[in-house]
Amino acid sequence: MQVVFSAEEIFSIAKAVRRQGETTDTVRGIAALTAAAPGDLSFLGNPKYKPDVAKTRASLVLVPIDYVGEPQANQLFVFVENPSVALAYVCARIEQSLWPRPTAGVHPSACVAPGAVVPASAIIGPLCVIEADARIGEHTHLQAQVFIGRGATVGDDCWLMPGCTVAAECVLGDRVRLQPGVVIGSDGFGYEFVNGRHEKVPQIGSVVIGNDVEIGANTTLDRARFSRTVVGDGTKIDNLVQIGHNVVVGRHCMVCAQVGIAGSTVVEDFVIIGGQAGLAGHLTVGRSSKIDGQSGVNTDLAPGSFVKGTPCLPYQLEQRINVLRRKLPDLFKRVDALESHFGAADSEKSSA
Amino acid sequence: MQVVFSAEEIFSIAKAVRRQGETTDTVRGIAALTAAAPGDLSFLGNPKYKPDVAKTRASLVLVPIDYVGEPQANQLFVFVENPSVALAYVCARIEQSLWPRPTAGVHPSACVAPGAVVPASAIIGPLCVIEADARIGEHTHLQAQVFIGRGATVGDDCWLMPGCTVAAECVLGDRVRLQPGVVIGSDGFGYEFVNGRHEKVPQIGSVVIGNDVEIGANTTLDRARFSRTVVGDGTKIDNLVQIGHNVVVGRHCMVCAQVGIAGSTVVEDFVIIGGQAGLAGHLTVGRSSKIDGQSGVNTDLAPGSFVKGTPCLPYQLEQRINVLRRKLPDLFKRVDALESHFGAADSEKSSA
Amino acid sequence: MQVVFSAEEIFSIAKAVRRQGETTDTVRGIAALTAAAPGDLSFLGNPKYKPDVAKTRASLVLVPIDYVGEPQANQLFVFVENPSVALAYVCARIEQSLWPRPTAGVHPSACVAPGAVVPASAIIGPLCVIEADARIGEHTHLQAQVFIGRGATVGDDCWLMPGCTVAAECVLGDRVRLQPGVVIGSDGFGYEFVNGRHEKVPQIGSVVIGNDVEIGANTTLDRARFSRTVVGDGTKIDNLVQIGHNVVVGRHCMVCAQVGIAGSTVVEDFVIIGGQAGLAGHLTVGRSSKIDGQSGVNTDLAPGSFVKGTPCLPYQLEQRINVLRRKLPDLFKRVDALESHFGAADSEKSSA
Repeated sequence: MQVVFSAEEIFSIAKAVRRQGETTDTVRGIAALTAAAPGDLSFLGNPKYKPDVAKTRASLVLVPIDYVGEPQANQLFVFVENPSVALAYVCARIEQSLWPRPTAGVHPSACVAPGAVVPASAIIGPLCVIEADARIGEHTHLQAQVFIGRGATVGDDCWLMPGCTVAAECVLGDRVRLQPGVVIGSDGFGYEFVNGRHEKVPQIGSVVIGNDVEIGANTTLDRARFSRTVVGDGTKIDNLVQIGHNVVVGRHCMVCAQVGIAGSTVVEDFVIIGGQAGLAGHLTVGRSSKIDGQSGVNTDLAPGSFVKGTPCLPYQLEQRINVLRRKLPDLFKRVDALESHFGAADSEKSSA
Repeated sequence: MQVVFSAEEIFSIAKAVRRQGETTDTVRGIAALTAAAPGDLSFLGNPKYKPDVAKTRASLVLVPIDYVGEPQANQLFVFVENPSVALAYVCARIEQSLWPRPTAGVHPSACVAPGAVVPASAIIGPLCVIEADARIGEHTHLQAQVFIGRGATVGDDCWLMPGCTVAAECVLGDRVRLQPGVVIGSDGFGYEFVNGRHEKVPQIGSVVIGNDVEIGANTTLDRARFSRTVVGDGTKIDNLVQIGHNVVVGRHCMVCAQVGIAGSTVVEDFVIIGGQAGLAGHLTVGRSSKIDGQSGVNTDLAPGSFVKGTPCLPYQLEQRINVLRRKLPDLFKRVDALESHFGAADSEKSSA
Repeated sequence: MQVVFSAEEIFSIAKAVRRQGETTDTVRGIAALTAAAPGDLSFLGNPKYKPDVAKTRASLVLVPIDYVGEPQANQLFVFVENPSVALAYVCARIEQSLWPRPTAGVHPSACVAPGAVVPASAIIGPLCVIEADARIGEHTHLQAQVFIGRGATVGDDCWLMPGCTVAAECVLGDRVRLQPGVVIGSDGFGYEFVNGRHEKVPQIGSVVIGNDVEIGANTTLDRARFSRTVVGDGTKIDNLVQIGHNVVVGRHCMVCAQVGIAGSTVVEDFVIIGGQAGLAGHLTVGRSSKIDGQSGVNTDLAPGSFVKGTPCLPYQLEQRINVLRRKLPDLFKRVDALESHFGAADSEKSSA
């Protein structure tokens, strides 16, 4: 971070309501209360860290309006409505300076095919490829080495980071952010086993991504066999996730890293899927369900389900079974004891 | 999909034997029976969906020769030998128009090193890099931003999608299709722990891919320590799969998304590996085995095995154990009851 | 491998101490004892393969100094201190010839922004992008299609293979090797759920990679929310690994393929993590711990831990429980028998 803010600037960016104390330092970094050094901005985001405020070496501390305490020497308390939100304001400002918007236009090294539509407000960075009949939205930024296939559409105000691929005919909504290396529109994995060989089932559908979607680095989304693979508005997908063909992910879902969703499964709105979980194909995961990390889902889930384990069970049951599982060595001994005590003459005895 | 077919064209492409009914619509999309709207082509691929035919709004429906029923108004039944296969014919035709073959030649933005062999029939798209002594086959298509390393060989009629890397000395057969972002020939993960450090074991082997192989987006295949990592003819590998160094995958296998196969493991012909399964190193998985999704294989498997779970067990046994596992809370209560009933005086009692 | 060595050259490269036998063959390949053919170099790296030496068809065999045996006709035994290390010397030599160092300089197709620092000793390959204020170290090699973001720093003697992305402000140490498709500095996965939507928490920290780190193909490392995501000196990370924001991985760790480490977790020095394991966020994994493949770690681990399973348990306990788990069908029968034998009148009986 190569950004410097004065106390005045933080006060203004954070929409602060009052201040206490004084510092001559400028802010050059952000750190947790216990890790902060002079020159850092810190914040009390969670009441449980209150005792840390008195000990922090941060030059500025964002605290809630009702916080009571004395700043140290050369330390300024900045009172705000919600310190986490206030910090996000500061971070958003820093983000802009870290990644300043380049000037609009097409870099001379980019390859834009005749027939592609690129508005004057778009930023097409170095070594991008845009095939024929693709359409790029207003103010959209293809950072570098991005590929947009034939007839694909990218909405307004998108940011596609280096090395992303949006294959032919796929559609992105507005304000979509793709981290580096995302692949949208690879072929679905469909074959028919005919005469001892796997014959390819052509995958001629597309992928349609809603507005305000973010997709993590090197994540892959397959195009549909026909029709569409869909990701709904506001959904956030982490790194190295696999979304199979004809999957429908609803609106405002969270899909954590390394999740795999097999073909034709429907994930309804507001679902949260923990890292490395796997969903079999042709399932429906009901609205607002939660799937714990590493779970294996092989059955439909009712709305509001909370599941864990492989194959997944209701969360509390799985937790309980995991506790009992650890007691299996003991249980086998207890059954041994019962048998030997009461003479399990004709019952099959096989001590563990 | 921006393709339009007349009923006549569908009749011809699908190799239809007769027709029933009449429609003035053209075909502009393909959809399942229940999802279809006027202008769509649909199909009866599975007898269990027979009742849906009478209700579908599709303009054209591919039905089997022995299907008995009446089309609706402005609806045409097209009778074919096998509706799924007939649909594949139509899809293959659409695929060609979605992804028309570009004109042969080397795009001026591509970097082809002196000494690389590129036949006149090959299509080298924008911003590809071909290093010295690499050889590209006849009619092979490197779509865009593809990297072919020093001395690598790509066979005839291949299609390498954007952002693929084929590193030095690796070899692809004919008709290989790589989805975007595939990496072939990254270093194997080999180190010796010497004097408190992991020292690299040079990885100087290669990767050899057979004919008719497809590899999914962002999948990685490591080069051998020495000798070769191998993928046999006709094998299909899905997205985000990891194939370790010196692995041998046989012919006509299916490897689903996010599978990992550790170094030196041999997977024989016709094996199917479900998504997210992991195979330890130095194993042999016998011909025609099936490994269920998310399984962990840490032992050799005899030919024709069907396994599930971590560590994997025979499929039926694992299924049965999963049923019993859910009854553990009950089992602990039953043992508690036995103990208290018969006085488990000197047996260790620890109720769950 | 297109390399030829004479017996003399092998003798010298392997730092051999004496020889026995004679061959007129040159070395054109390396193979295991049982797989070797004339023209191959083989080696006795593990005493258990001693019987294979007498049967190998290799032209040259690296054997330990105390090996006793007779070479076959046209076969040379080369006695060395440690055959595995001697082989590594040979492989390192081959590696150099497979991947000869290109001439220093910037390829004319690369896009280097004004203000980027590129020393004359660096090799900037075709179609690389270096943004403003980035700094490249001495003798560092960006192979092709690599992206270095604004203000990022790459140390000396690094090798970044095709398609790698090092995003803005991230820092690599010296002698770092990135396999193809690595993404360093994607946004951390951080959102606040506000008014029914996931609002992005800006990710303005960076990633700092130490010296002598290797990172596998298509692996992703997220930048910190603020401060840094860290990978310590000498750590080796395999393919398709996900490292979340604010994670700290210590020095000389091994992280196998497809591992996921969630945000803010600290992995201390010398930890080994098996393939496909998942670590929840905000944990500490103590120094020299070992985590078995596919494990799920959801709790802090003391230094020197060795764990397995999901949720993970001490390795030996998990192994024992896995054995007992297979006996569950038997255990249920035994409890059935006890109940029917002694009349479990008022105990709830539910046979499996």
